[in-house]
Amino acid sequence: MRELGEFALIARMNGGRDQSTGVLLGPGDDAAIVAAPAGRYVVSTDMLVQDRHFRLDWSAPADIGRKAIAQNAADVVAMGAAPSAFVVSLGCPADTPIAFIDEFVDGLWTEARRAGASIAGGDVVRSPLLVISVTAFGDPPARAVLRSGARPGDIVAVAGRLGWSAAGLSLLAAGAELARFPEVVAAHRVPQPPYDTVLGMPAAAPITAMADVSDGLLADLGHIAAASGVAIDIDSAALGDPALRPVAELLGADPLGWQLTGGEDHAFAATFAGGQQLPPGWLAVGLVGPGSGVTVDGAAWTGPTGWESFAEGG
Amino acid sequence: MRELGEFALIARMNGGRDQSTGVLLGPGDDAAIVAAPAGRYVVSTDMLVQDRHFRLDWSAPADIGRKAIAQNAADVVAMGAAPSAFVVSLGCPADTPIAFIDEFVDGLWTEARRAGASIAGGDVVRSPLLVISVTAFGDPPARAVLRSGARPGDIVAVAGRLGWSAAGLSLLAAGAELARFPEVVAAHRVPQPPYDTVLGMPAAAPITAMADVSDGLLADLGHIAAASGVAIDIDSAALGDPALRPVAELLGADPLGWQLTGGEDHAFAATFAGGQQLPPGWLAVGLVGPGSGVTVDGAAWTGPTGWESFAEGG
Repeated sequence: MRELGEFALIARMNGGRDQSTGVLLGPGDDAAIVAAPAGRYVVSTDMLVQDRHFRLDWSAPADIGRKAIAQNAADVVAMGAAPSAFVVSLGCPADTPIAFIDEFVDGLWTEARRAGASIAGGDVVRSPLLVISVTAFGDPPARAVLRSGARPGDIVAVAGRLGWSAAGLSLLAAGAELARFPEVVAAHRVPQPPYDTVLGMPAAAPITAMADVSDGLLADLGHIAAASGVAIDIDSAALGDPALRPVAELLGADPLGWQLTGGEDHAFAATFAGGQQLPPGWLAVGLVGPGSGVTVDGAAWTGPTGWESFAEGG
Repeated sequence: MRELGEFALIARMNGGRDQSTGVLLGPGDDAAIVAAPAGRYVVSTDMLVQDRHFRLDWSAPADIGRKAIAQNAADVVAMGAAPSAFVVSLGCPADTPIAFIDEFVDGLWTEARRAGASIAGGDVVRSPLLVISVTAFGDPPARAVLRSGARPGDIVAVAGRLGWSAAGLSLLAAGAELARFPEVVAAHRVPQPPYDTVLGMPAAAPITAMADVSDGLLADLGHIAAASGVAIDIDSAALGDPALRPVAELLGADPLGWQLTGGEDHAFAATFAGGQQLPPGWLAVGLVGPGSGVTVDGAAWTGPTGWESFAEGG
């Protein structure tokens, strides 16, 4: 990295890539210009720090790039908005190999494309450890889907995997039999938010509230419950996932703990008006009622929490 | 910081602050929503790393917050765009005092207000050292001012201070007689981009290209010259600044070196069609001609470079 310098590096990050149609002016000037056909746009930003949000011995550079984009794209999609662009700042040591950066940038672009957008700009600075900051933009529908719209009688539903990232992290931490569960380990390295399941919903879908599952299903439904002034009860029977059972058996863990409290899968949790069919790809997992807080099968969850970051806490 | 936790900290960063009118939905959901009345918006992002872009023994927390916003706001304004919102991610050690964060956030808001905007959201994560990432948004005019519009015969002009930040940095590095030059030292701690000089220009002002001076006047005019396919010659006699002379005498430095190569002042450099009056606040400092590259009084600059970061390089 030292040899190339910042300007050459930024040029390299964007060379030969086509911007998506929403990016009216890409890298190279003081700022990028992005289209906002709706007259407004959604914005989300996250920072990832080495050894806290990713480990270089557990994730390949492309995985880290994909994960950084995916977690921000999921925030945008959780508003009902279609991703339009990302900007990425990278802090890295001077001796970071160029191959590392090339692969990281490939990962950024791979996931940005999967989300339907491109990397519109960024910054590269030196830092004693790797730090990645992503800001994501998107075009919201006529009415953005907020966390505050859930009403008693609504159905709680989930799109995407729950607990896979936590199970994969547990496998990596245990260092055991990774080859037996490649998909589960991959789910920790690169979350796979089902963007299309959300963005492909008919405009008339009776969705009332939505969040992405980044802190764990209980925590993120807790945000919806608090913002909406309602209670949510989860039906644990609806959550069974045959793919997690053998992993849980191997590690002596409770798969329900992973599914309820594991973060980082970036599934989507939403509420839909009752008595209507859920859109394709959504699985009903609970009900909204009057009151406050989130329960599992009618009681507070006292089982294991599935998500222990390799560093402590969020 | 550890005691409060991320959610309480984010609430604290935004509690009791009014969002600017362009922010339609502030912090608290998966993403913010910002208005884009022009149907498009400009975006710029920068990362600041402790001991590289700021030092805790040289800058107060509020200074660091102000500087982080100012350097991003300047990029937005350098497109001719009015800042509308900022998002800020902060990585900091778990033992960071709450008072530090409060003062840092005050600095963010002070400068955001000065730029006419607000802090629409952000992220707080733990990191072994302080890392700040700011993304700035703005509303561009009908024709954004790019770096590529300079033409032979244009006048080169500057709005704002040049060399003050470099002179202040030199004073701090020398550790000498700071009290004699409080304004010069303050200019390093908190750049003062003259947003209003740019944004207050009449719509008919004959501006053809613009950049903010973040890497030094020669370097940033070099970007304009390269993007426009022109040569630029600077008239050093136009740059004399009586405030810098006594600092230069004290340190045995060349003030012209600071002015030509010092970064971080976030002045604005622009080109204007010749034969017309410059808008208020702009100082003519050179001419655009055919060719390429930037010269000073007709020759390549071989004098001292004024900007030595306390860490090495950009």
